[in-house]
Amino acid sequence: MSNPRKTFHLNAFLMGVGHHEAAWRHPRTEEHRVLDVEHFRELGRIAERGTLDSVFFADGLAVGPRIKRNALAVFEPVTLLAAIATATTHVGLIATASTTYNEPFNLARKFASLDHISGGRAGWNIVTSGSEDEAFNFGYDAIPDHARRYERAQEFVDLAVRLWDSWESAAIVLDPETGIFADPDRVHTLDYSGERFRVRGPLNSPRSPQGRPLLVQAGSSESGKEFAARSAEAVFTAQRTIEEGQRFYRDLKSRLPRYGRSADDLKVLPGLVPFIADTEAQALALEQEFTDLISPDYALRQLSTLLGVDLTEHALDAPLPPLPAESEIEGGKSRFTLVKELAEKEELTVRQLIGKLGGGRGHRTLAGTPEQIADDLQAWFEAGAADGFNIMPPYLPGGLEDFVDRVVPILRERGLFRTEYTATTLRGHYGLEPVESQFAANEIAATA
Amino acid sequence: MSNPRKTFHLNAFLMGVGHHEAAWRHPRTEEHRVLDVEHFRELGRIAERGTLDSVFFADGLAVGPRIKRNALAVFEPVTLLAAIATATTHVGLIATASTTYNEPFNLARKFASLDHISGGRAGWNIVTSGSEDEAFNFGYDAIPDHARRYERAQEFVDLAVRLWDSWESAAIVLDPETGIFADPDRVHTLDYSGERFRVRGPLNSPRSPQGRPLLVQAGSSESGKEFAARSAEAVFTAQRTIEEGQRFYRDLKSRLPRYGRSADDLKVLPGLVPFIADTEAQALALEQEFTDLISPDYALRQLSTLLGVDLTEHALDAPLPPLPAESEIEGGKSRFTLVKELAEKEELTVRQLIGKLGGGRGHRTLAGTPEQIADDLQAWFEAGAADGFNIMPPYLPGGLEDFVDRVVPILRERGLFRTEYTATTLRGHYGLEPVESQFAANEIAATA
Ligand SMILES: Cc1cc2nc3c(=O)[nH]c(=O)nc-3n(C[C@H](O)[C@H](O)[C@H](O)COP(=O)(O)O)c2cc1C
Ligand SMILES: Cc1cc2nc3c(=O)[nH]c(=O)nc-3n(C[C@H](O)[C@H](O)[C@H](O)COP(=O)(O)O)c2cc1C
Repeated sequence: MSNPRKTFHLNAFLMGVGHHEAAWRHPRTEEHRVLDVEHFRELGRIAERGTLDSVFFADGLAVGPRIKRNALAVFEPVTLLAAIATATTHVGLIATASTTYNEPFNLARKFASLDHISGGRAGWNIVTSGSEDEAFNFGYDAIPDHARRYERAQEFVDLAVRLWDSWESAAIVLDPETGIFADPDRVHTLDYSGERFRVRGPLNSPRSPQGRPLLVQAGSSESGKEFAARSAEAVFTAQRTIEEGQRFYRDLKSRLPRYGRSADDLKVLPGLVPFIADTEAQALALEQEFTDLISPDYALRQLSTLLGVDLTEHALDAPLPPLPAESEIEGGKSRFTLVKELAEKEELTVRQLIGKLGGGRGHRTLAGTPEQIADDLQAWFEAGAADGFNIMPPYLPGGLEDFVDRVVPILRERGLFRTEYTATTLRGHYGLEPVESQFAANEIAATA
Repeated sequence: MSNPRKTFHLNAFLMGVGHHEAAWRHPRTEEHRVLDVEHFRELGRIAERGTLDSVFFADGLAVGPRIKRNALAVFEPVTLLAAIATATTHVGLIATASTTYNEPFNLARKFASLDHISGGRAGWNIVTSGSEDEAFNFGYDAIPDHARRYERAQEFVDLAVRLWDSWESAAIVLDPETGIFADPDRVHTLDYSGERFRVRGPLNSPRSPQGRPLLVQAGSSESGKEFAARSAEAVFTAQRTIEEGQRFYRDLKSRLPRYGRSADDLKVLPGLVPFIADTEAQALALEQEFTDLISPDYALRQLSTLLGVDLTEHALDAPLPPLPAESEIEGGKSRFTLVKELAEKEELTVRQLIGKLGGGRGHRTLAGTPEQIADDLQAWFEAGAADGFNIMPPYLPGGLEDFVDRVVPILRERGLFRTEYTATTLRGHYGLEPVESQFAANEIAATA
């Protein structure tokens, strides 16, 4: 990674036995493994065999009444990643956690803990939780307002960073001779008092190997992009065409200078659901097998939530009913717009739309040979539409194995991806150093 | 365990490199291992070699300004236990978590996750967080009132139980043929609306192997005992003499019938810090080595917090200053009283008191041969002062190894402790079955 422009980043976005809605019904998966921690540990090892930067787990704090999702996150991601950490040595471990329904102190501590346990491999996908079902589980009558959620997210993350910084790396002394465990002058009380939070600090965890987890963001609305530009180091996003990808990429990067950051400080990783086979025809046939297994019942409930209209009684072979404007959506704005535009542009019936969304809920699906997949990634990368990719295997573990064992070698041959790990931390895979405490810096300045 | 009256329970209460305040300064420990997850995984394996019921981690949500503790919990317990789960197969995994500074939905989910990851070995030590330092990290100006904390704890636990029960064990269908992932009639919306919480449910996790974690409680105040009598399945407690132990034991057990429970439904586990050596003289000398390593500085700060008076400027060789009454203490009431009575009864100077508390912060310390330790445990058990013990090794891993390899074999020979595991879940070690959902029972009643 001597030239960060030349190689790209690969994250494995893992979900149950695969991203495809119907993955668990397909013979390539063993459906009961959604409940088996060993399945996930194995996925971690496969990702590591492919020298991927990281594995990543999404999360939602509700399943809703009558089980809207048929692939649900059984495990709380940080706990699950702690179990995966002990099965792996290099691969980064990114967990989703909500700033809307957590306390900063608890969450900062949890990620510090994961970073310690994994020897510096933790990442945090920061989300604001855009579903009504989640709001109902935390005492709300409706989704908290979109703008307010992002305001809270910003204060939350700024505070979490201070909490991680409350311990300088030199704070731990552990000198049995003098009996000094920690140097109190290097452990900082914050006395933080902001609009939403008051926290004295310090954090109850010594500084972790990376200083703080890699900060990742995954909302693409206006507020989401602004938040990412200020605070994130990587962005997951759903982009359907190379042109849209380029636009999003330029848009995000152009926001960075306002925060004193440069284009390299924030990596953009669009998602891709790859169906891989020996020939393109076989890959397309494989994708079709999955599409054919979708239960419209579940899919309609998910789509209804996403679009803010009740489609459960809507005719499958009719076009969508009129949809609200993005401004009326309090949940995920960018995904709403992506799906709305897709349906309108391609004049899809509800059934066709469900088929298109089955693979990755709006993320781009590509069926092809290993070479075709590699060509596509290279094209996006070279066109300035991506700094790397969020690989979303439609079925697991097979879909991840195919990517790691068939696509990654091609990317390596082309010099687009690392052939071995050159670091043991997630920040290291991104070419970043561990972060020192902001308070340590001040002190040096003060004594200089 | 055919006769639960005849054998007892053993929990390993683990802390850093040992319970003794000065453990990390003693040559029997490697101080840097407080930061090493492999140290803790090894402890799990040692406990399992001894067929112990469980390992347990305490937790506090603050270190306070200027680092009051010299042995701090680096890792968040649930995350740490997920890492230990993958290094072990049988031993129970008990994590402390606060009902005062968590959300019921998040915590219920975390324990469900640990129970899934460990195949049914999770336990929850329910605490209400009695320190001011913790309150300051969560937006409070003072410790929330003791009685209110326990009221919240009660509502919290009742709600957590409902959340775990929101999925019946038969809810997961996973039938690829019909495409039915979960049976929505067996996943229950709660629409819970109580004094402090409103949660719609269901939980975002299928029922875990044990149905719910083993519920453990560790406060011994009047409110704490009442709470335990109603909701806990095991109680950790600090009792200094066999007579006090008997009184506490009878007191707790006598409260159970009021809640429709019998004496066997709640196990009482007093703590013991064992110093083990070939001869009693050697064991006492070993204990003295640890006492001599205590830094009064740290110890005074801890004692000040515990007693609610500032002792940091107090003469070490003077008796304690006048102390407040228990009713004025908003933190841990029972520990306050235990320490106050100890100091008064034995007319201790501050220095002597610090020495006595060094091993286990008020828990009983016993220095002796393996036989003496075994005799003592047997005496407490047979006198009706304990259903088992919370073993608190003063240094780690050595102190746990000595207990497992030298004391456990004697207990086994005497028929007081299991020779092998007869179950793979923590509830199983307690002779309990997995718990079925309360909603499943109702349904059967309704259709009967
Ligand atoms: C790859 C990817 C993963 C995401 N994962 C989650 C997740 O796990 N949990 C969540 O609440 N939101 C997740 N989101 C974000 C939501 O989809 C949604 O964008 C967000 O709640 C609000 O963002 P917006 O309104 O800024 O678009 C993810 C988004 C992307 C692109
Ligand atoms: C063995 C044992 C372990 C305990 N562990 C914790 C702990 O990890 N965290 C905590 O906040 N309180 C813990 N406590 C409880 C406190 O010491 C204190 O008793 C509690 O906060 C309030 O209880 P009380 O006022 O009912 O006595 C523990 C108690 C015992 C006996």
